[in-house]
Amino acid sequence: MTESNGGSRANDVAVIGCGLMGSALARAFAKSGYSVAAWNRTPERAEALACDGITPVRSVDDAVRSTRLVVACMSTYETTVAALKPVTDWEGATLVNLASGAPYEVTVLERWAAEHGAEYLDGSIVCYPQDIGSSEAAVLYSGSPAAWTDHERTLMSLGGSSAYISDRVTDASVLNVGVVGAFYVSALSAYVEAATYVLGQGVTADVLHALTQVTIEGLRKASAEAAAAIVSGEHATDKATIDTYAEAAGAALAVMQDSGQRARMLAAAVENLSTAAASGSGSLGFFAQTTVAAADPAKAV
Amino acid sequence: MTESNGGSRANDVAVIGCGLMGSALARAFAKSGYSVAAWNRTPERAEALACDGITPVRSVDDAVRSTRLVVACMSTYETTVAALKPVTDWEGATLVNLASGAPYEVTVLERWAAEHGAEYLDGSIVCYPQDIGSSEAAVLYSGSPAAWTDHERTLMSLGGSSAYISDRVTDASVLNVGVVGAFYVSALSAYVEAATYVLGQGVTADVLHALTQVTIEGLRKASAEAAAAIVSGEHATDKATIDTYAEAAGAALAVMQDSGQRARMLAAAVENLSTAAASGSGSLGFFAQTTVAAADPAKAV
Repeated sequence: MTESNGGSRANDVAVIGCGLMGSALARAFAKSGYSVAAWNRTPERAEALACDGITPVRSVDDAVRSTRLVVACMSTYETTVAALKPVTDWEGATLVNLASGAPYEVTVLERWAAEHGAEYLDGSIVCYPQDIGSSEAAVLYSGSPAAWTDHERTLMSLGGSSAYISDRVTDASVLNVGVVGAFYVSALSAYVEAATYVLGQGVTADVLHALTQVTIEGLRKASAEAAAAIVSGEHATDKATIDTYAEAAGAALAVMQDSGQRARMLAAAVENLSTAAASGSGSLGFFAQTTVAAADPAKAV
Repeated sequence: MTESNGGSRANDVAVIGCGLMGSALARAFAKSGYSVAAWNRTPERAEALACDGITPVRSVDDAVRSTRLVVACMSTYETTVAALKPVTDWEGATLVNLASGAPYEVTVLERWAAEHGAEYLDGSIVCYPQDIGSSEAAVLYSGSPAAWTDHERTLMSLGGSSAYISDRVTDASVLNVGVVGAFYVSALSAYVEAATYVLGQGVTADVLHALTQVTIEGLRKASAEAAAAIVSGEHATDKATIDTYAEAAGAALAVMQDSGQRARMLAAAVENLSTAAASGSGSLGFFAQTTVAAADPAKAV
């Protein structure tokens, strides 16, 4: 499977960084039949992949120059740039960076790649290393459409739920911060608090599970309504208002805390609701809280 | 449809409290063909239901004595008990209270009902008034199994997603506090924060929606794992640890806040993760946060 390589480009892909995730990526590429070069700052980790049909390469310059597709997976954008510094020739290559980083770091790395003659794709991995290569695996890509067209087939071999989401290079990072970080981690933390309380009160896991399923289905519908309301700025409602939610959530918080729970997540939610009510949004719908999400509400959209 | 009534019990059901929700309940019963009496502290609200085939009754004693099934829907447990005080005869009747309340209030009201010779069912309404009577409507019931057997058919006419969940009378209230209050409200508040940030960075609603669906599916799976881990106390993991989540969530929080967002929910989640890490759970899985959910972790299970 070397049909897409230029003359001297012996490998389909080079993986830069062979930690837990980088190693999983290299193995998934190899398993799909691609020829893979692997480089790691400490060479032992790359060499450990040799038995999986991967070619460990001692020089990062050699690794990058052996291919048109460079997939970097190091801990930070800073270490990635430092590691890639010795590379002498990026011409015709695409750099795909899968480190977790802030949107501004993505912009900086895209510029760096352009200055070195490389196309750039940014990626956010939103699954575990164990999932890589399976239908469960999800990597979000954004950036150069030309690079995506070139390498889609190879990159999609990492996992079935992956997607190219946007030609705006920072979108994958923004979504990772917002949806995986701010939403998923917070929601799951709230669930741990809720389940700790409910199970601690002697409700069975089966009963908890049944209501959780219904509630998550409600969350699915509400999330679409939330985005529509935030985009349109229309927060009038004929359902429960922020005042109603604030009262009910405040009562639930008191019950949780009386039972000895800290309920940090619900306390923060009550603070959001109270702040929105205090700012004059009490008679509007739940999503009007968007107006007090900013640190300085006066500057909020 | 008076077949289940005793001799002088002229109505199938009496609805006590005709606010927005109580009126919706009365109308749904009537629409299903049941004969309905309605009482409200200010009689005008009950009288307004007459055109829907409901019988407004001026005396709460007359209303309760006209039926075997009394469905109370007032703002609090306190106002409910005060309103029901004049009732002279509960013999053979079941009281179903659908007010929102704390588990200890449920216990107190059940005892009050027993002392007055009534069976008791507690209910938590987890839908909007508009949903009542439709397949979307959900009311959770717990308490006397005999009362449920007697009145299941009538009560289920309020909505298709309702369920009798437990003979432990407080379970409906506990689930309402934990799953609807602590989980749903917190998760949705986190989503508003996340969507405000993501859309504010120029990501389209369609792209946000697509990742949200995947993330909510992940939340569905994780919630079941969370409950199992909390019940078993097994928090070892071969996936991301609390330390890993704390680092990633901390980085996401910094990005959110740099962009001008307050990110209260994520800040609370980071605090949960950091507290768990500081207490020695850093190398365990996400759900080990259950051990620091209590206000005094030393007392946590």
